[in-house]
Formats: sequence, structure tokens, C-alpha cells
Amino acid sequence: MEVCTKCGNSKVIIKRKQSGQLLCKDCFIENIQKKVIKTIKKENLIEKGDKVLVALSGGKDSVALLDILYDLYKRRIIDLCAVTIDEGISGYRNDGVEIAKNHIKKLAIPHKVVSFKESFGLTLDEIMKNPNHRGSCTYCGVFRRWIINRVAREFNATKIATGHNLDDETQAILMNYLEGNIENLTKIGPKTVSKSKLFTPKIKPLREIPEKEIALYAIAKDLEVHFAGCPYAQTSFRGEISKIIKDLSENHPTIMYSTLRGFDKIKIAIKDKYKSEYKFEKCEICGEPSSNEICRACTFLKELE
Amino acid sequence: MEVCTKCGNSKVIIKRKQSGQLLCKDCFIENIQKKVIKTIKKENLIEKGDKVLVALSGGKDSVALLDILYDLYKRRIIDLCAVTIDEGISGYRNDGVEIAKNHIKKLAIPHKVVSFKESFGLTLDEIMKNPNHRGSCTYCGVFRRWIINRVAREFNATKIATGHNLDDETQAILMNYLEGNIENLTKIGPKTVSKSKLFTPKIKPLREIPEKEIALYAIAKDLEVHFAGCPYAQTSFRGEISKIIKDLSENHPTIMYSTLRGFDKIKIAIKDKYKSEYKFEKCEICGEPSSNEICRACTFLKELE
Repeated sequence: MEVCTKCGNSKVIIKRKQSGQLLCKDCFIENIQKKVIKTIKKENLIEKGDKVLVALSGGKDSVALLDILYDLYKRRIIDLCAVTIDEGISGYRNDGVEIAKNHIKKLAIPHKVVSFKESFGLTLDEIMKNPNHRGSCTYCGVFRRWIINRVAREFNATKIATGHNLDDETQAILMNYLEGNIENLTKIGPKTVSKSKLFTPKIKPLREIPEKEIALYAIAKDLEVHFAGCPYAQTSFRGEISKIIKDLSENHPTIMYSTLRGFDKIKIAIKDKYKSEYKFEKCEICGEPSSNEICRACTFLKELE
Repeated sequence: MEVCTKCGNSKVIIKRKQSGQLLCKDCFIENIQKKVIKTIKKENLIEKGDKVLVALSGGKDSVALLDILYDLYKRRIIDLCAVTIDEGISGYRNDGVEIAKNHIKKLAIPHKVVSFKESFGLTLDEIMKNPNHRGSCTYCGVFRRWIINRVAREFNATKIATGHNLDDETQAILMNYLEGNIENLTKIGPKTVSKSKLFTPKIKPLREIPEKEIALYAIAKDLEVHFAGCPYAQTSFRGEISKIIKDLSENHPTIMYSTLRGFDKIKIAIKDKYKSEYKFEKCEICGEPSSNEICRACTFLKELE
């Protein structure tokens, strides 16, 4: 009979192919929490007294992240707040927003729900009706970052935490290896810091946890999460790369870890050589930081007029 | 009607997806030759007066390489010689050796055919009968390099040229990215030079030419080549990666080029930081260079006794 490698409990919920480790529910939950704390310490992502803004979509990654960081909040190590973006995607986003609100109600931390509509006058659905649109993900990424960065300043947050997991990180690394995009590679990592004070540093505490273990964590902790996929997610290069990594992981269960470890070594070598440090000015229209006179969000909005 | 983008000839033999370029036979042949010369100049692979030893298996890559380098020989820019290894693989290797000999007969350059049997007392077939063998490719790689390096010194060659193509190079890069093997990555490149004078520098003039264009070059020039695959070639990690790159290239025809260009930039940054410079001594048994007291070839031979 298979029993938990740590405590001998017979109710095993995961067998880790890479190590042969078997874990019961309680040991698995503890193990994930410890791994995240280990990443936070190793990469110096959070310091005592930080005010962390969680980008909370209501999906498994951000809900698990909030759950784990909440423990640091209860122990008065950090202060915590959250932001949820309503992009305006009919039949999809409302559920996520409701789930986010439910979590916040239980945890009683400051929370803002900010919509594309109130920020930019347009929902993502309305943007996608424009025949000359640049693709949903392009707008979504730029507009979301714009809102999160602004809300971080409103909250006086000292860190923005996002739910990027090991799969997300490995995909980004491999995509940029294959595209030969060295400048983008220098931007990937556990922590993004800018010299500009207008930008709040971004951290990824879950970057060493595989996606399926985060899903299992959410189930094991009985967390309410939004599992539906975005209707605009399309056959993209990221989708192809995601499938390749998943297939390879079947026969090579440690491949995402080895890719990440290798990248982190490469990153040390390339960041001094290839990282371009933009000089940020305030966007002439919205006042947000921008490397050009007008920021990308305002540029897109002008195009869509 | 589709015509050659360069000369207007209507007999097009290739349409390059990545650029839309169409080429007739003569323009394609000239284009490949020019691309190889461009790589040689850019990477400073060969200098006037070099004596180049071609590792000639009789396969499409090494035969095309010999064909292109022979032009430099005819123009008295370089001296040329060749070595063919007979690993002792029944029903496979003889054809390659015969094809290599036929080419050499026409070109009238110095040539050695050296067998595993005469060098080590064992054919690869005999090695593979040992129940504790380490896998065919492990022996084949180590023993072939041992022979080629020794023959290079016997010929007083100043460069060893191998037929590695763009596919080979991209596979090696991607495998080591995924395995996180940074030390191996520092060794990949157009030219391998060692501080030890016992090693002759190795060059890869075909590293920017895709495998299928080398095959087409061999056909276009009506070169006799050995197209059969090695019977010991097995389902390997390289095989998986090869398939992934081929599949990706269907929708992203420039992906091997962008991977290579990106890697070459990364290489510049990592080589100083991570490259380990071995101190080579002479192997106590065979006298060939080795980073240990006994070289890998002699270690393997002892195991096989």
C-alpha cells in the first residue's frame, strides 16, 4: 500500500514523478506553503513590513497565492491588499470577480475591483469589435498592467504579487529562447524592479510550483476558484510551447525545474550585458510612467477612438 | 508561373518559406556555397594556409562540406585532407566508407580510413554484445573523437571540419537549455578551440544551413551520398527535440535561425562566467590528451575487457 512519505498516512493525494515522493493532503499543503516561503526568502521577494498588493483574478493561481500570503499577514509579517480587474468579458469575467470578492469578504483586507470600462471607457468585448484591433491579449496585458501599477500607488503598496507559476515561467523562457529575444529574457525572473519610483516592484512567489500542483493545492484546501479559461485565449505560440513542455514533462518530469535553474544561471550572465534600462518619463496624457512621450495604453486608446 | 527570384529561370527547386525566395538549381547551389563562405569569414573559421581535415562519413553533410571546401582547395586558399571512421557496424558502415573513398578518388586528396577494430581491437557491433555496455552513441562519440584528433596530428592539420548543420546545432542548444546544462552550452559554437596544443581546433562551416537544404544541395550537385540512418540510432532525447523543432518550423519557418542567433548572444555572456578550462595532461595509457590520468576511451576499453 502506498503511504505518505512524510507521515505514513494512507490517503496519498500526490505522487511526484520527479522524486517518487508520496504526500497526503496535510503534508502536501504544508509542503507547497514551505516551498513558496523558500522561494520568497531565497529571492528576497518580501521583507518584513512590506505592503503586498495581490493581483487577484479569482483563478487558481492568484487565489492560492492570496491564501499562502495571508498566513504572513496573520503573523503580522506583511500588510496585504488586493486588486481585481474586470476586463469586461461577457459570460466569463463576472464569475471570477465574484469569487475574488467572496475571498476578500472572508479575509477582510482592502480590495479594489477596477474595470477597463471605468478606466478606459471601453470593455475588452467592445475593443474586440473594432475591426483593426491588435489582438485581445495585447490590450489585456497593457491595460491590466496600467491599472495594477496605479492601484499599487493608491494603496501605497511596496510590492505587487502575481500568480505566475512554474509552467508560465518556463513557457516564457522557452518562447524567448526560440525567438532569440535576449532583451525579453533579461526581464524574466522572480522579481522585476525598476529604477523609476512610479513603478512598484513585481514579485512571483509561485514561480517554482508547477501549475498542476497549484490546482491540487486549491482543491486540497477547498478554495473556491474560477477554473474556466478565457474565451479570447487562442491558438498562440504560447499555446504551442505549453503543449511541448507538458508532453516533454511526461517522460522527463524534472524538465521544467532544470530549464528554470539553467535560465536563472544564464540570466545572471546576460542581465548586465543586454538589459536596457529605460528612462521613464510621465505619459503626457495620463501621467503614468512611460518610456515614450505617450504610454502604450494611451497610444492604444487613441487608435481605438 | 513561379520563377527563380535571382535569375528568372522557370525551373525552381526550392521555395524558402522564411523569405519567400524562389531559386533554380544553379542559383541555389551558388547561394549555399556563398552562405557557407560567409559563415567561415564571419566566425573566422579558416585562414589562408590552413590545412583542413574533413571528418568524412559519406553522409550528405560531410560530403557537401567536402564539396564546398574543395573549391577553396582548388583556389589554393587551403590545403585539404580527410578521415573516414569505420566503426564496424555490419550492413551499414561499409556503404558510407565506399562512398567516401569514391569522392576522395575523384578529388585526389590525402585520406585515411581508420577502423575501431584496428584502433581499439573491437568493432561497435562487438562492443554492443557486452551486456554492460553504456549505449552505442556514448562509445561511438568518444572513440570517433579520439581517432579524429589523432589523425589530425598525423596529417599536421590545423583545423578539423565537421558536417554539423543548423538542425544539429539547434537541437544541441535546445537540449542543453531544457537540461539547464550551462557548462555544455559554453562548448557549443562554430569553433572549438582548446589551450592544449594536443587538440586541433574544430570548426562547423555548415552550422547555418538547415539539414533539408544540405540534402537538396547534395541532390542538386548530384553528389553520391549515403542516406541510410545508423541502425543504432534510437529513441533518444535528441530524437524528441529534433521532432519538436521540425514541427515548430512548419508554422515558424525562421525558428532555427532565431534560436541560433539568440544563443550566439547568450554564449558571449555565459562563456566567460561559466566556461571551465580543463588542464589537459597526456593519458597514462594511450598518450592522448585527457583531463584525468586515464582518458575516457581508455576507461571504456578497460571496462569492456
